[in-house]
Amino acid sequence: MSSQDLRAVTWTAAAEGGAPSLSLIDQTVLPHALNRLDVTTVDQLVDAIVRLVVRGAPAIGAAGGYGVALAMAQGEREGWDRARLDAEVARVRAARPTAVNLMVCVDRVAARIDEGAVAVLAEADAIVREDLAANHAMGAFGADWLLKRVPPGADRPLRILTHCNTGALATAGWGTALGVIRELHGRGRLETVYADETRPLLQGARLTAWELAQEGIPHFVQADGAAAGTILRGEVDAAIVGADRIAANGDTANKVGTVGIALACAYAGIPFVVAAPTTTVDLATATGSDIHIELRGEGEVLEWAGIRTAPAGSRGHNPAFDVTPGSLVTALVTERGVLEVGAGELPGVGLS
Amino acid sequence: MSSQDLRAVTWTAAAEGGAPSLSLIDQTVLPHALNRLDVTTVDQLVDAIVRLVVRGAPAIGAAGGYGVALAMAQGEREGWDRARLDAEVARVRAARPTAVNLMVCVDRVAARIDEGAVAVLAEADAIVREDLAANHAMGAFGADWLLKRVPPGADRPLRILTHCNTGALATAGWGTALGVIRELHGRGRLETVYADETRPLLQGARLTAWELAQEGIPHFVQADGAAAGTILRGEVDAAIVGADRIAANGDTANKVGTVGIALACAYAGIPFVVAAPTTTVDLATATGSDIHIELRGEGEVLEWAGIRTAPAGSRGHNPAFDVTPGSLVTALVTERGVLEVGAGELPGVGLS
Repeated sequence: MSSQDLRAVTWTAAAEGGAPSLSLIDQTVLPHALNRLDVTTVDQLVDAIVRLVVRGAPAIGAAGGYGVALAMAQGEREGWDRARLDAEVARVRAARPTAVNLMVCVDRVAARIDEGAVAVLAEADAIVREDLAANHAMGAFGADWLLKRVPPGADRPLRILTHCNTGALATAGWGTALGVIRELHGRGRLETVYADETRPLLQGARLTAWELAQEGIPHFVQADGAAAGTILRGEVDAAIVGADRIAANGDTANKVGTVGIALACAYAGIPFVVAAPTTTVDLATATGSDIHIELRGEGEVLEWAGIRTAPAGSRGHNPAFDVTPGSLVTALVTERGVLEVGAGELPGVGLS
Repeated sequence: MSSQDLRAVTWTAAAEGGAPSLSLIDQTVLPHALNRLDVTTVDQLVDAIVRLVVRGAPAIGAAGGYGVALAMAQGEREGWDRARLDAEVARVRAARPTAVNLMVCVDRVAARIDEGAVAVLAEADAIVREDLAANHAMGAFGADWLLKRVPPGADRPLRILTHCNTGALATAGWGTALGVIRELHGRGRLETVYADETRPLLQGARLTAWELAQEGIPHFVQADGAAAGTILRGEVDAAIVGADRIAANGDTANKVGTVGIALACAYAGIPFVVAAPTTTVDLATATGSDIHIELRGEGEVLEWAGIRTAPAGSRGHNPAFDVTPGSLVTALVTERGVLEVGAGELPGVGLS
């Protein structure tokens, strides 16, 4: 199977007398194994989101949408009242704090609870369908923009740096930033990808590299610390990343390590591009300093593959995201088109 | 033993009828084991430098100096002529390409070969003695400068970010950037240290954290990608790092990941400080683009502790260093005092 056809999140209707289930590709064991985890309860789903079995803002949004359907089915089986159902839906909504997609998708689907299970499932399906379509649109808009801009007048294939995983695994399919990269590759205009390994959980080395390898897209994995130097030495034409939440002023929360790439692009004078569906823009959040940055467990940075790397006495500092000032975002690629944020075209204006 | 008293590189004179040896702390197995490796031949020494049993620009400089003595003793045992001895010394000199200290120290000691083994050993010993004294001087100069500058007028303890390992393990003892940190701690003016883990070989998580833990200095280990965000959120008062080579214009080669920290400091308006002995300044190198950046093996970024992380089809990009433009270096702390490089006080002027 080509990774572009992967579905990280799929719904299976209940068999006669059974429970429906949400099937998740277990992203904690890739690239060594391609396993699916089937969850049938809210507890299992929240655990899967917290452990990053499913991760990536649009993918956890999709999982959250189906989570409402899952909660309804579980409530049916277990005789929950409406207050209990709402509380369980709220647990899904709060499973991770930074990506706005999770909250938006849960709220959107939960608004249809009164219409019954069929309407709820239809809404969750619509989220997936729309996300997939948005990603293909972003891919085309992003590739058009990059090819027009980078490098001016040249027609050679591009060298693109990316961070974390924004591919089919992180979304309903195809990918956001990685969708743009797939599109460039499909047009024969991609030379190579520099995929930052993305410590501490190595989504770049494990997931992005796996998706690229599946497609035969040339790529190098590099340490996150190498990104700025690679950019400053002129080895990269543009960087493109996803987003977990974009504030009204364009400040963008994304996987930790992103803002360093944006600073290097600004210094080197190359585009720093964010690809994200408009649902990632949160007009209720004024600036990046209002975005809750998830602090994850210390163990993720103190050990590696179960092996302790730091001394026993060391503490870990593990913010999962950072905030890139909107002024450093050259362009925001959405399913509606490209906003040149750093040039003053703010999401709060362009998307309101 | 306190880590500040550690000697990463020590010489042991020959016992009756035996060979002298160079004892190296094996930095590949810390923090899990504190083992020493005794090398008696040029082959063993070159291998130890290449494998990073000994690493850190001043420490490999010291090892290189003793390497000349080791080569003379081996040549004596094996009957080498002068051409062979020179060739073996040249192998030590070329064991790693980026740090200028290795070349400078080997040349300095090799210049005394004609005077015999006693003079050669005395010169190698002098390098170690001078490096240790330089580190203590840097510690005092650096702490004075930081306390005068950061934050203006405040007298609270400082929060310092550092990258890679610049401590006793990386030098003849005490440390360069870590020496400044020790000095701040000794004066009761250090709140905490953010130690970047320093992928791919985790010198920060394994070595810096170990030295800090030995001294009871409060610290957090963080992913390299976290550094810029931690700085931009205002959690750091200054960053201080070492250097492997400083060009005449102030451009500074240091462990990969350094330039991203410098960019974040510039953006946040906090000092980015380099602590390095004047021997690290290479006036024969005009700018950073003339510095040879060592590309190390792909395996270092594609696997960890023997476990493959990236897919089988992935390539790795593994520059061991990057170059920070001199304009981003707020201050260069040397054993002679502090140069404010970014303000135009260039090493090529101040140190000529």
